[in-house]
Amino acid sequence: MELYTDAYFMNEALKQAKIAFEEDEIPVGAVIVCRNKIIARAYNQTEKLTDVTAHAEMLAITAAANALGAKYLPECKLYVTLEPCIMCAGASFWSQLGELHYAASDPKRGYSNLGRSILHPKTKVSSGLMAQESKDLLDEFFKKLRK
Amino acid sequence: MELYTDAYFMNEALKQAKIAFEEDEIPVGAVIVCRNKIIARAYNQTEKLTDVTAHAEMLAITAAANALGAKYLPECKLYVTLEPCIMCAGASFWSQLGELHYAASDPKRGYSNLGRSILHPKTKVSSGLMAQESKDLLDEFFKKLRK
Repeated sequence: MELYTDAYFMNEALKQAKIAFEEDEIPVGAVIVCRNKIIARAYNQTEKLTDVTAHAEMLAITAAANALGAKYLPECKLYVTLEPCIMCAGASFWSQLGELHYAASDPKRGYSNLGRSILHPKTKVSSGLMAQESKDLLDEFFKKLRK
Repeated sequence: MELYTDAYFMNEALKQAKIAFEEDEIPVGAVIVCRNKIIARAYNQTEKLTDVTAHAEMLAITAAANALGAKYLPECKLYVTLEPCIMCAGASFWSQLGELHYAASDPKRGYSNLGRSILHPKTKVSSGLMAQESKDLLDEFFKKLRK
């Protein structure tokens, strides 16, 4: 039985997003997996760190490189609950990321809006897994914010 | 007499690039100026930190926000010795950077290759100041690397 499916890892990313939600951060979470093992978990911390660069993916990429002792992540898979922005897609390019799995699309700020891929040519991409759960969490956050 | 000209600040960025050179990092340096005062200085540290996100601009944006205690940098000017990549341009977007001044262009990895601006609409841009000095330093670095 294969326990460590894409759904398992995306659910772990969603758990990170829920931590962000609880901490009044825009709820986006990420994990990075290398050889079926989670080597980094992160959630958006732009408010807490007063740092626009502290997106979940950026923190996860930095943590994964640190865990591996290597700059490049060609054997790693990034699971993130929202489509990466241009900054994060750029970081994944530099990391030579093996696979990118994102849940919800981001029609406004997602990297795919650029019309051409800015990912590394070797990065495989899939999207849509647990998209509804991720979107619901984001919608709930922004509804709470507006109150 | 105006001491704090664009050339003065770009030269300070170039000094950072030279530190990177001495430390065997790709020599790119940056400073961030707010109300005529340098509030952040940084140079590329991707090797030392084993972190592809540790570009000079990223470190400078994080440091400037930290210095100001504020996420956004609309009154700040970033001086950087090489045209920012997509990741760094994306970070400058999120920071709502006031002005971007870069020295040398980066025909291969510069953000302007995308054909449309990914900067924040309010970010003013200038380029070319001390471009030759910056390019010479980069060329010297890659020549040294190939030996």
